[in-house]
Amino acid sequence: MGVVNLGLIGAGRIGKVHAATITREIPDAKISVVADIFVEAARGAAELYGIPKYTGDPEEVFADPTVDAVVICSSTDTHAKFIERAAMAGKHVFCEKPISHDLRAIDRALAAVEESGVKLQIGFQRRFDPNFRRVRELIANGSIGKPYLVHIISRDPAPPPIDYIKVSGGIFLDMTIHDFDMARFLLGEEVEEVYAIGGVMVDPAVGEAGDVDTALITFRYVSGAMGTIDNCRKAVYGYDQRVEVFGSGGRAIAHNETPTRTTFMDGDGLHGDNPLHFFLERYRVAYADEMRAFVKAIEEDTEPLVTGLDGKIPVVMGLAAWKSLREHRPVRLPEAG
Amino acid sequence: MGVVNLGLIGAGRIGKVHAATITREIPDAKISVVADIFVEAARGAAELYGIPKYTGDPEEVFADPTVDAVVICSSTDTHAKFIERAAMAGKHVFCEKPISHDLRAIDRALAAVEESGVKLQIGFQRRFDPNFRRVRELIANGSIGKPYLVHIISRDPAPPPIDYIKVSGGIFLDMTIHDFDMARFLLGEEVEEVYAIGGVMVDPAVGEAGDVDTALITFRYVSGAMGTIDNCRKAVYGYDQRVEVFGSGGRAIAHNETPTRTTFMDGDGLHGDNPLHFFLERYRVAYADEMRAFVKAIEEDTEPLVTGLDGKIPVVMGLAAWKSLREHRPVRLPEAG
Amino acid sequence: MGVVNLGLIGAGRIGKVHAATITREIPDAKISVVADIFVEAARGAAELYGIPKYTGDPEEVFADPTVDAVVICSSTDTHAKFIERAAMAGKHVFCEKPISHDLRAIDRALAAVEESGVKLQIGFQRRFDPNFRRVRELIANGSIGKPYLVHIISRDPAPPPIDYIKVSGGIFLDMTIHDFDMARFLLGEEVEEVYAIGGVMVDPAVGEAGDVDTALITFRYVSGAMGTIDNCRKAVYGYDQRVEVFGSGGRAIAHNETPTRTTFMDGDGLHGDNPLHFFLERYRVAYADEMRAFVKAIEEDTEPLVTGLDGKIPVVMGLAAWKSLREHRPVRLPEAG
Amino acid sequence: MGVVNLGLIGAGRIGKVHAATITREIPDAKISVVADIFVEAARGAAELYGIPKYTGDPEEVFADPTVDAVVICSSTDTHAKFIERAAMAGKHVFCEKPISHDLRAIDRALAAVEESGVKLQIGFQRRFDPNFRRVRELIANGSIGKPYLVHIISRDPAPPPIDYIKVSGGIFLDMTIHDFDMARFLLGEEVEEVYAIGGVMVDPAVGEAGDVDTALITFRYVSGAMGTIDNCRKAVYGYDQRVEVFGSGGRAIAHNETPTRTTFMDGDGLHGDNPLHFFLERYRVAYADEMRAFVKAIEEDTEPLVTGLDGKIPVVMGLAAWKSLREHRPVRLPEAG
Repeated sequence: MGVVNLGLIGAGRIGKVHAATITREIPDAKISVVADIFVEAARGAAELYGIPKYTGDPEEVFADPTVDAVVICSSTDTHAKFIERAAMAGKHVFCEKPISHDLRAIDRALAAVEESGVKLQIGFQRRFDPNFRRVRELIANGSIGKPYLVHIISRDPAPPPIDYIKVSGGIFLDMTIHDFDMARFLLGEEVEEVYAIGGVMVDPAVGEAGDVDTALITFRYVSGAMGTIDNCRKAVYGYDQRVEVFGSGGRAIAHNETPTRTTFMDGDGLHGDNPLHFFLERYRVAYADEMRAFVKAIEEDTEPLVTGLDGKIPVVMGLAAWKSLREHRPVRLPEAG
Repeated sequence: MGVVNLGLIGAGRIGKVHAATITREIPDAKISVVADIFVEAARGAAELYGIPKYTGDPEEVFADPTVDAVVICSSTDTHAKFIERAAMAGKHVFCEKPISHDLRAIDRALAAVEESGVKLQIGFQRRFDPNFRRVRELIANGSIGKPYLVHIISRDPAPPPIDYIKVSGGIFLDMTIHDFDMARFLLGEEVEEVYAIGGVMVDPAVGEAGDVDTALITFRYVSGAMGTIDNCRKAVYGYDQRVEVFGSGGRAIAHNETPTRTTFMDGDGLHGDNPLHFFLERYRVAYADEMRAFVKAIEEDTEPLVTGLDGKIPVVMGLAAWKSLREHRPVRLPEAG
Repeated sequence: MGVVNLGLIGAGRIGKVHAATITREIPDAKISVVADIFVEAARGAAELYGIPKYTGDPEEVFADPTVDAVVICSSTDTHAKFIERAAMAGKHVFCEKPISHDLRAIDRALAAVEESGVKLQIGFQRRFDPNFRRVRELIANGSIGKPYLVHIISRDPAPPPIDYIKVSGGIFLDMTIHDFDMARFLLGEEVEEVYAIGGVMVDPAVGEAGDVDTALITFRYVSGAMGTIDNCRKAVYGYDQRVEVFGSGGRAIAHNETPTRTTFMDGDGLHGDNPLHFFLERYRVAYADEMRAFVKAIEEDTEPLVTGLDGKIPVVMGLAAWKSLREHRPVRLPEAG
Repeated sequence: MGVVNLGLIGAGRIGKVHAATITREIPDAKISVVADIFVEAARGAAELYGIPKYTGDPEEVFADPTVDAVVICSSTDTHAKFIERAAMAGKHVFCEKPISHDLRAIDRALAAVEESGVKLQIGFQRRFDPNFRRVRELIANGSIGKPYLVHIISRDPAPPPIDYIKVSGGIFLDMTIHDFDMARFLLGEEVEEVYAIGGVMVDPAVGEAGDVDTALITFRYVSGAMGTIDNCRKAVYGYDQRVEVFGSGGRAIAHNETPTRTTFMDGDGLHGDNPLHFFLERYRVAYADEMRAFVKAIEEDTEPLVTGLDGKIPVVMGLAAWKSLREHRPVRLPEAG
């Protein structure tokens, strides 16, 4: 089909990550238009990445007949609406997570996608990280055997701005959501129950915003396998992203990536690197691979690797985690969704 | 005070471990008598370790005026009673864990110890493992800062005999009890609530005996710090004993010990050792150091490093875990004890 | 100065690596023309990387007034001549290693560069690898103290074609040359003597071509520090690229990079990744950084980080190594150069 | 044959190591007499290890009809003579390395052993270290295939007293001698040529005593395999004992042992342990296993695992290394021996 023409909606941080990736690493796709309600942001991205057209009005992207697919990187509250608009315009959609904090809005968006027959891929880029993908393969190919226990550690180097936390849906919807997706991705099966505890350890302002900054989530899969998620908004040593899966055949551990493998030893012991700084560094390859996969799904007319349902379920899990934390008891997913 | 005279009660596996340690590595202690209700076992140990006297009747040990202290390695159901008998006879006591599954029996034993003024040390040898001790030091010296999250992984290479499981009090009292002690030891503070889930993944016979073989316990400390314990009665790759503590200052991880540090790389990748086979290998140094500490506490008339209360609380935690598993809800310790 | 215009000479494997890097990752440079004596290769590269002009005649590049600098990736026997031609045409030069096997040809080329005042950077990309750069920093910042001993391990996954070996100058000039450069780079000082032994262990055809496929080189720096280089044309487990420097303050080790940090443990032990496959994978970042450094040296009119002399001395070291191997004795550099 | 009766000759540091090992860990052997020309040292050791008899005259040991074997731990200059005396007395011999610095004295001692038919084991304890033994197994079982390259790193935490250096035979005979033995042990084949360079980097007093404190030895096996030994009398980070063997099938690396496997990560990076402090800590298991092997060779009437010839050849290698260093050229072993 030649080159896939993309319309980029949202020229903030993650929008620029995708713009850079598409421009540099995906020869069979190009961004033909970028929209941002801050038109200056759109103009800046257009210049930086050589995008021929920019606009302050996303509707121009949906109306553009040369656009094959849109990449939605705008603020979360616009995701569901833009998915619907794109579907109505017959354009494939790549959308950043989460689709919405409102399950009805998600359902409406997914229904629109279903009806129109366009493809929808959700931006859970960690599925494309080579380390986690390797763990997934070890499960899929039977090396790990029957899975028993899963551990996901996901700690940020620093909390986001408090203003963001106020609208983000809180830790379970803005941070743990990636780990909920990871839990499903690793075993390829559904979680049926979650139990969440948490606290404000890092910054009282997080608590005043109605959120926790440190959390521990226990979950159980339908098969009986069990798991934990360990989250903290601040680790002084950096971005800590690890996974362990243990089963009847053995255990796999995905360790952190680091800037170098160089160690130094002096009288005080052995010294090595901290992890790669944050998600842009750690998931550089994953961001490129997810976009490549999206373009390939369009070109080859196949199901995207992260579906709309994959976008919805972690939101249900996040809502269930909030319910669990508030009611201090395990919560089954249907109670939340 | 010269050499400390010990009476060994119980000449089974763990009794022999202590006999070997005392004989070879603790010059200022000696075992002057060994008792086992299977008198042949007592005789065998006496021969093997050059113990001058053996008997089938533990009462002979309590009655022996030359015995300064007893080392109780008999079956769990006799521990509390023998502690009481030793205390009444004015002998210091080293007792294997757990003291009892019955909290009233524990309280009676501890009261007898209190009244008589003898010393009591409980056999939580993992506190003496150099790896876990290092983690403890990093907390105690402030390196880790305020602790946020604790993870304890403790998996056995193979399940014990089903007959043992039937009388052991189940996984939370025979296996997790070490991890409950570890949770308290690492942070030096009390746990106030536990939440336990589990399943029969390894062997249906374990379930038929009324136990689970795989469990996940979440707990919360009084300070608000949180933690998990991951237990399984069978890991095909061996004895997995790890700990992680994460706090405001950083994180410490105690990895497994292995027979060698030799690696081999061929076309299939890098290959390294499995962990040390089981507890006798992994905790060789810890078994020696706990006994040295007991002898030193007697010699220097100091408080033992693992007290009677340290022996009781993990039993309460185990009972709380069972209550949590059965009632499928978080349980506060006072509910169990 | 706006965008730096580059002329690419040679559209083989390494030429394409640089073309891809420049196109994707260096916004302030562009390739305006590509030349290859196989004009079809030039045309293919032009298409692949969107280069506006291609030619079968390198002279067209030197004659093009819009070209600021040339990137020489043609066969080794043309390097010195093309450097001279570029210098005469007043164009800066990036040239792949080695400049030549003939020291007089090198001297002529360096004299032409000197006279014309253009910049010359040699393609020792390993200096830009983050791992080795870290070791260099630990020496430069004094952490390692006074260096005592250096070890460089450099093994290829598979030998090159025998036809290449016949014209490559042999192992010391086509393979060890990178390690000779590393030896100088790490300590920032000169080697004064080398002692080389070697053998044909991997493939008799290498021996028939007059080369060895496995070699061990010992060297001594002017400061008295000593070092070794371990080379083999075939390691079944892949591309092995390590460095160790030991000094009065401690030791630094640069380990291999691997595709993932994921490990798997089963009943047979721990399993991890082989190193990144070969130089394109291992030195991806280094290739980009060396080209960025070249462009920056032009833009900011500074001395390139790898000079013409840096290009010459490893050739002298390679010739000294051959002399040492043949005469079975240590050889001082002036004897070869 | 019941318990093997040992006579210990020399009650210095290494003598006490063996006394402790035999007393604690080898139930089928006992030391019945200890001799030291400093009779107080003999008396001290006798008390410490419960040895029933002590003397200031080694001849009393050779004359004692109850002694089955002697363990020679006296100063190096007495080794050869005491081996001869023991052989004449029909007693098996365990002797610390080196036998002598004088090849004729070695030959006389070995001839006496040969004639008398007693067993002689030399104290190259590193052969019994589990890490190096594993590397040896990987060669012996074919995993490594045909060996190409060997690297031995052996650095001490601190230099010995200068007075010791003056009589020790210098670095190649007191320190490298272990590595020469390792080179032979790992591949199970002979070295035919060595090339040694070295310098005084750590302490000028070492140079004034006629020795070097840092050395690099290159060697070649009869099969054509090649290797290096890296020695330094002082590494600020402790005792560095590593080995790498690379061959057609892959590579094995023996890393250092450390006190714990606990790591800590903070804002400055990852921190781990230095190696075990020095040889007593690192080779604790090896010292016990070599002595067990000696006792077993006596009990089962088998050839000791480290023969008299194994004791002689490293001395020849050390003399060849000195010749190489002085004459600045590769030296074949027969030139030295």
